[in-house]
Amino acid sequence: MPAGLAAARGLEPADAVFSGGDVFNPFACAWERTDFAVRDGCVVGLGDYEGKREYDLAGTYVVPGLIDAHVHIESSLLAPAEYARLVLRHGTTTVVADPHEIANVCGAPGIEYMLAEGARTPLDILVMLPSCVPATSLDLGGARLAAADLARFRGREEVIGLAEVMNVPGVLAGDEDLRAKMDLFEVVDGHAPLLSGKDLNAYIYAGAGSDHECTTLAEAREKLLRGMYIMIREGSTEQNLEVLLPLVDACTAPRCCFATDDRHADMLATKGHIDDCIRKAVACGLRIELALRMATLSAADRFGLHDRGALAPGRLADFCVVDDPDRFRVLRTFKRGVEAVDAGYRPPACPAAPLQARVPEPREIRVAGRGEARVIGLVPGQIVTRDLRCPVDAAGVPDISRDILKAVVTDRYRGGGSGVGLVHGFGLREGAIAGSVSHDSHNIVAVGVADTDIVRAVGEVVRLGGGLAVVFGDEVTALPLECAGLMSALPYEEVARSLAALEEHARRLGAIENSFMYLSFLALTVIPDIRVTERGVFDVRAFEDVALFLG
Amino acid sequence: MPAGLAAARGLEPADAVFSGGDVFNPFACAWERTDFAVRDGCVVGLGDYEGKREYDLAGTYVVPGLIDAHVHIESSLLAPAEYARLVLRHGTTTVVADPHEIANVCGAPGIEYMLAEGARTPLDILVMLPSCVPATSLDLGGARLAAADLARFRGREEVIGLAEVMNVPGVLAGDEDLRAKMDLFEVVDGHAPLLSGKDLNAYIYAGAGSDHECTTLAEAREKLLRGMYIMIREGSTEQNLEVLLPLVDACTAPRCCFATDDRHADMLATKGHIDDCIRKAVACGLRIELALRMATLSAADRFGLHDRGALAPGRLADFCVVDDPDRFRVLRTFKRGVEAVDAGYRPPACPAAPLQARVPEPREIRVAGRGEARVIGLVPGQIVTRDLRCPVDAAGVPDISRDILKAVVTDRYRGGGSGVGLVHGFGLREGAIAGSVSHDSHNIVAVGVADTDIVRAVGEVVRLGGGLAVVFGDEVTALPLECAGLMSALPYEEVARSLAALEEHARRLGAIENSFMYLSFLALTVIPDIRVTERGVFDVRAFEDVALFLG
Repeated sequence: MPAGLAAARGLEPADAVFSGGDVFNPFACAWERTDFAVRDGCVVGLGDYEGKREYDLAGTYVVPGLIDAHVHIESSLLAPAEYARLVLRHGTTTVVADPHEIANVCGAPGIEYMLAEGARTPLDILVMLPSCVPATSLDLGGARLAAADLARFRGREEVIGLAEVMNVPGVLAGDEDLRAKMDLFEVVDGHAPLLSGKDLNAYIYAGAGSDHECTTLAEAREKLLRGMYIMIREGSTEQNLEVLLPLVDACTAPRCCFATDDRHADMLATKGHIDDCIRKAVACGLRIELALRMATLSAADRFGLHDRGALAPGRLADFCVVDDPDRFRVLRTFKRGVEAVDAGYRPPACPAAPLQARVPEPREIRVAGRGEARVIGLVPGQIVTRDLRCPVDAAGVPDISRDILKAVVTDRYRGGGSGVGLVHGFGLREGAIAGSVSHDSHNIVAVGVADTDIVRAVGEVVRLGGGLAVVFGDEVTALPLECAGLMSALPYEEVARSLAALEEHARRLGAIENSFMYLSFLALTVIPDIRVTERGVFDVRAFEDVALFLG
Repeated sequence: MPAGLAAARGLEPADAVFSGGDVFNPFACAWERTDFAVRDGCVVGLGDYEGKREYDLAGTYVVPGLIDAHVHIESSLLAPAEYARLVLRHGTTTVVADPHEIANVCGAPGIEYMLAEGARTPLDILVMLPSCVPATSLDLGGARLAAADLARFRGREEVIGLAEVMNVPGVLAGDEDLRAKMDLFEVVDGHAPLLSGKDLNAYIYAGAGSDHECTTLAEAREKLLRGMYIMIREGSTEQNLEVLLPLVDACTAPRCCFATDDRHADMLATKGHIDDCIRKAVACGLRIELALRMATLSAADRFGLHDRGALAPGRLADFCVVDDPDRFRVLRTFKRGVEAVDAGYRPPACPAAPLQARVPEPREIRVAGRGEARVIGLVPGQIVTRDLRCPVDAAGVPDISRDILKAVVTDRYRGGGSGVGLVHGFGLREGAIAGSVSHDSHNIVAVGVADTDIVRAVGEVVRLGGGLAVVFGDEVTALPLECAGLMSALPYEEVARSLAALEEHARRLGAIENSFMYLSFLALTVIPDIRVTERGVFDVRAFEDVALFLG
């Protein structure tokens, strides 16, 4: 008889028994005071058992391990093992990760890197393969992944589906390579900001099963009614939870889950991870049991992960312990029945990454002209931008009074040129910020006041071989990102501290909160309305390069 | 561009548009007034579309096609295509069928027969492979199916999993062939009446994902909390709905569905199918929307059937139309966008089936002895029996005053002997009833008053080559079951009429309602407490043959 079966029947002692806690049961959205027994990492049974180790959980609440339904680990700026150290502390035991950023920089070897680094940590890093590398046919980036390239990853235990299909026009046009990618997997995540009506129907018909890009309640409701799982996202700057939460009730909770998408190390360290989403949901009025349903079983079901999402026989013994469900402070996390005790920092491998950038001369980023200009308008707390039309005289840029600054994207891969646009919303009154994190192609992006500072900030990022920098004259704050120019090789505490120092420096220069996260999305050619690339201004809706000045 | 995609986008007309109805949306358990468009059998979109055909559904309510989560079609006594004609009228568009009965009689060719006949009807007959043929190691029956025999069916489009694993002792003992069968499929249905505590944990740990045998609310609640899908069963005699319904609320509805398991043609014709379950649930106080959730998306989800369960883009255009959701009378049924108009009766193929029975002489079914006897006690409305201990003098049997009659099981396959037991609850005051439907081995089973009538009834079933018979002296009512001795080759109307005539005749002799369904379970060696087989009395709990008289 298999050992687990014997343990389940109580014929042999379990490896461990956890007793006295109130266990959250997502099948009924209810609490149940029960002991449970674990053998070989799986729950074998609930009830009265004996085990080789006994854990007294009396007085605490036990919750199945939290699941992040969609995240780019790279966006934390942490290498995978450091990311894992940090989120495990917050009760997360599984993340569904899309290594889209490193794939855009390094191609398939970047995905291999994430899988290999993921295997070093007790956190389950399950991978949805990046569907759109490059994000659009106009982007060059560092790699191009066709269906055949993705097919090679099929059958790998950690690879569970196809990640956010951002190329909505391609799906709607019946693009064949995209179709071939979607046919590789049963589980296909969508990514369709603002899509609705017939085009939404067509996108779902083509196979997109979820969306994490909803920014309004009506949008989320339409997508849910049409059959999509709704991933309510709460990232560093993409914060949709409060607006979308009225969607969730007992009937819809099985179709909703939480995702962080892009959350910086400092936010993870100070606010938390999915536990933070749960707290925020409760603060917004959601019943804790529905928030926990979303964070556990609903997320597991979305991916057909029937081995987790609940503490039930045969499922992984992944759970966290809290002292008060509504306050939801995670005290301890267990992965496969073993307490996730922090083993400390171990230096990650750092993949070689292309960085063939030519730092522009100030004259190369000058703009000329006057009239109505296309200005990228940041939207606080959102990833979408507005296409602001402002009367601008190029000679008057930067225009501190109207907060119109220059945004520059420098080709990272081929020593090519730099594109220039205008942006409203950063608030900088002096200096410049720059970084090699720049979704999705991860060219070098900068925003600043004086051209000399912009150029110097770009130069600093290049000098570091990838990183983030704040520059004002000779005053420089920087964080090197040794791993592909996307992630730091440092311990998470240091990265969080560095990020805080960068943000603090930027704030002293006038910048808004989370300026580096907004910066990283300035070149993101798949989210409306307009962006800037190494070629210049890009209109996402028209899907074409456009001139800075109209007419 | 694929035609469906073009239709979804509204660039080409759909095949059909259904307009004006209130459509039930199981993702939100809500009604939505919307048109929807269908192309190539699938919903392409909801909203304002144009189609080659237009259906005006204004004033009606549209519900995704109903799903029976667990049924033995053989138990209707109808061949598959006739069964389909009948249930399609009641809004059912998918049944998850376990061809367990015919597999016990005919082996793998019986499964092939059901697949082939199922392909003749628009109803989707999806097959869960019978896991326990024979039901126990002590049963002989007509076939033995090992894991290797089942493996040959893997990959067939209609084959979706492993059906009710009834051999609970085998599972708990770690039986290797059973383990091999369970490892063949992702989806494994359970069957564990009264199992609880550690043994239930172990059974679920081993992989059983559902149960349709709950008879008490506490039992169903425990199983649901441990992760099983609960199939609330409402068959001809196994009626668990009213007792189990308090389990269902908005949180648990995604984990509950309806099943009929064993429902005779006459009940299907007069009361209905899953529509009847829905009506009964509403009559018991369940919100119609939760009942519909169970009957559609929950059932589809249980089997990972993401192509149905809702009217949403990319899913099958299976639905029924009702005039009033609470009354829930099905007016029309559509399968893959086409109205299921009754095409009339077509004679089914009739598989050759073994029938090598030796009709016993009256002296062979005499019993001797006196003292405390094991009497099988029927439980009205349930499939379980009670182990009644009654003082009996064999010379005083039949004992009409105490309703203690003789139950006889005659070997059908090898011309072997007959086993005799005693039964309480049939109510017969004269005559006998017999049939070749006798779960799970389908030997010939009879209950009656005078031994001569019992023998004559068995003889009539043998003469018919399988069937059901009521006998009192020279008065005989019979229904031949040409298809393997399990199903009739007649049109469903005639089968329903014949069944009614049989039951009416039995009733005139004193029998309870649905006497033939109770009769068919008398030899069922996998449901407690006690049964009768061709070997004599069988104690299910002890899993052994026992003597009629104790001590």
